[in-house]
Amino acid sequence: MGERHHSRRGLLALGGAALAGGAAAGTLTGCRSDSHTTAAPADRVPFYGTHQAGIATPAQDRLAFATYDITATGSAQEKRAALRTLLRTWTAAAAAMTQGRTVPGDNTDLNAPPADTGEAYGLPPANLTITFGLGTSLFDDRFGLADRRPAALADLPHLPPADLDPDRSGGDLAIQACADDPLVAFHAIRNLARIGRDTVVMRWSQLGFGKAASNGADQQTPRNLMGFKDGTRNIHGDDTALMDQHVWVGKETDQTWMRGGSYLVARRIQMRIEGWDRDYLADQQNVFGRYKYSGAPLTGSKEFDTPDFKAKGADGQPVIPAKAHIRLAAHENNGGIRILRRGYSFTDGIVAASGELDAGLFFIAFQKDPREQFVALQRKLGMNDALNEYIQHVGSGLFACPPGVTAPGRSWAEELLA
Amino acid sequence: MGERHHSRRGLLALGGAALAGGAAAGTLTGCRSDSHTTAAPADRVPFYGTHQAGIATPAQDRLAFATYDITATGSAQEKRAALRTLLRTWTAAAAAMTQGRTVPGDNTDLNAPPADTGEAYGLPPANLTITFGLGTSLFDDRFGLADRRPAALADLPHLPPADLDPDRSGGDLAIQACADDPLVAFHAIRNLARIGRDTVVMRWSQLGFGKAASNGADQQTPRNLMGFKDGTRNIHGDDTALMDQHVWVGKETDQTWMRGGSYLVARRIQMRIEGWDRDYLADQQNVFGRYKYSGAPLTGSKEFDTPDFKAKGADGQPVIPAKAHIRLAAHENNGGIRILRRGYSFTDGIVAASGELDAGLFFIAFQKDPREQFVALQRKLGMNDALNEYIQHVGSGLFACPPGVTAPGRSWAEELLA
Repeated sequence: MGERHHSRRGLLALGGAALAGGAAAGTLTGCRSDSHTTAAPADRVPFYGTHQAGIATPAQDRLAFATYDITATGSAQEKRAALRTLLRTWTAAAAAMTQGRTVPGDNTDLNAPPADTGEAYGLPPANLTITFGLGTSLFDDRFGLADRRPAALADLPHLPPADLDPDRSGGDLAIQACADDPLVAFHAIRNLARIGRDTVVMRWSQLGFGKAASNGADQQTPRNLMGFKDGTRNIHGDDTALMDQHVWVGKETDQTWMRGGSYLVARRIQMRIEGWDRDYLADQQNVFGRYKYSGAPLTGSKEFDTPDFKAKGADGQPVIPAKAHIRLAAHENNGGIRILRRGYSFTDGIVAASGELDAGLFFIAFQKDPREQFVALQRKLGMNDALNEYIQHVGSGLFACPPGVTAPGRSWAEELLA
Repeated sequence: MGERHHSRRGLLALGGAALAGGAAAGTLTGCRSDSHTTAAPADRVPFYGTHQAGIATPAQDRLAFATYDITATGSAQEKRAALRTLLRTWTAAAAAMTQGRTVPGDNTDLNAPPADTGEAYGLPPANLTITFGLGTSLFDDRFGLADRRPAALADLPHLPPADLDPDRSGGDLAIQACADDPLVAFHAIRNLARIGRDTVVMRWSQLGFGKAASNGADQQTPRNLMGFKDGTRNIHGDDTALMDQHVWVGKETDQTWMRGGSYLVARRIQMRIEGWDRDYLADQQNVFGRYKYSGAPLTGSKEFDTPDFKAKGADGQPVIPAKAHIRLAAHENNGGIRILRRGYSFTDGIVAASGELDAGLFFIAFQKDPREQFVALQRKLGMNDALNEYIQHVGSGLFACPPGVTAPGRSWAEELLA
């Protein structure tokens, strides 16, 4: 039967009878072509390109994030070969899934497990993007890759307010799957885990259920679980000058395999929601430095008004308080430093120890050098931010996302593993 | 300022300056009327009615389910009074939130916590429904309600395959919030917890991220996480004859306060996904008794073909195997018993003990008498269902959902607590 990337919609056209009988092969060939005739419909993000999708791409509605540890055994060379094989298979599967096709392999052999787990059959691509990253731990001595580690991929230092759970931190590999349908996003991380089960084991995963930062010029700015607009001053993915300046790794890198890539920092930020909800409106607004409902800075009247950090009130105090979040995070007050935020809200039941809701922000940021961007910013926020009273970082990860895969047959991190 | 149910959209029109100054009250009055001028737009489900919304209502895309334990102290009479006050406040808040308005109370006083937590400001109603239920534990001796307990609200017996976690089971009260936007659904259970914090504490919660059973005539049947269509033969909410026969409590009840209500059974059903994914396609299809891709019964070719349970293959064996899920669950084979299923898929990371994905079906079913419906069906399924090899019930709840609130000023369970 050859290649079997079936259109998720196409397979639905199959009656039970056709599948049960020998007619299946012919029918599937007919259906498969459906998914190749149209170029980039509205709900399909191209997979191949200079950069990986899912970074500049306007944030979709839902996130499924997972990290994986490599379990392959043998010599460093053998483990590296296993990793290379895995990434070849993963890349092909990701290319298919993002275009609304099933995982490559046989889905119709009655005497074998289907290649695709099936829960997304019939669903559209839903703008699925699958973004791949390599963790700091990958560059230990297991794979002989220590001398290929970029300087920018330095382990994150301790950055308060943090009490990190090792079971929600780290990982040799990471997958960020984003889509407008949560089932489509989950299907991606589940099927990659399944495909890789002889080589990797899932370390932790996180679902995000409402995007928490706008990175698109025409998007409404979403609200975080504190009820405030988040991302008003974020970098827009279509601003290529800012993307080149702050997000994409360029010639400055010491490792050419990362050129065109970016570094992903993930932080699971738990909010002390009950305490926050008891805080006065004026205090909440002073913590952020913005009005809650309009999103305007305290020195303005509209959301996109530029904050006036010098403005003083009648009492001689700054209108935007000294410890307000937007003052400390603003690029004007950080030597021009910016990051691309692409986080999601989460809620995962109740924290057993406190009985409070386990909810907050799954912060994701992309940048060209975490040492000079996320770490520098978070060091400052960690010392002074008024928000610290209401948040704690409980999970963390740093991943090198290599450049995009430029054509079918090529793989993620090909240059690194060549 | 009088009533302050603000339109979630209306509040957005407020600039920061208007809110900061004394002009806020006048501005809000103008905005508020927005939400009262149009009758039942496409994305708004009426709150008031004979029955509670969220049962016959076609399943929305997302679920936030929570149960709460009552912490009020004092005599039975005092505790009942506290419960009555809580339900009056909850009902008014639910009525407002389902219509896209903020939680009643002051959201603009700078020197007080806002009445509404704010993360849903600016979002449409998203077909939010909030369905309320009373747990079996409410009818112990704490509230003097033991003699008002309906016979149909009998504690569920042990029903294999189950290994129930008490931290995911039971609760004095339950809220099922469903909406097409997960943030809107979460906002509902969070704000009810907040409003009730002197009277209740959240016991457990569950998010559902893809509806797993169709209960609407014109809906596409969704797939569960095993990749199979689920709900093909479900009761449709607009089929009033079947609803009266199987779902709504009628004259037969021993407790008149439940007339027009229904009983909600919730089961957190964990799937052994990794094992399932290794199973052959033919076995998977035999477990369900349906074709995976088309959803047709093994005796048919189209999804809605009626299964022929008598049909035999060339080998003399039944085409739909004796232990197939659809055979055991079919009303034809259960003396006509039916339930309305309204469950959602879930995934909550990884099970620490096994390292497998913690994912499955959050089963929700409505019926007029659980003893004769869910319990009878599950007893049979528990003994024979081929699916049992791949699932385990790990959480459980049974709740009496009283009839609908018929007009503003009235409350959930008013007749019970009168």
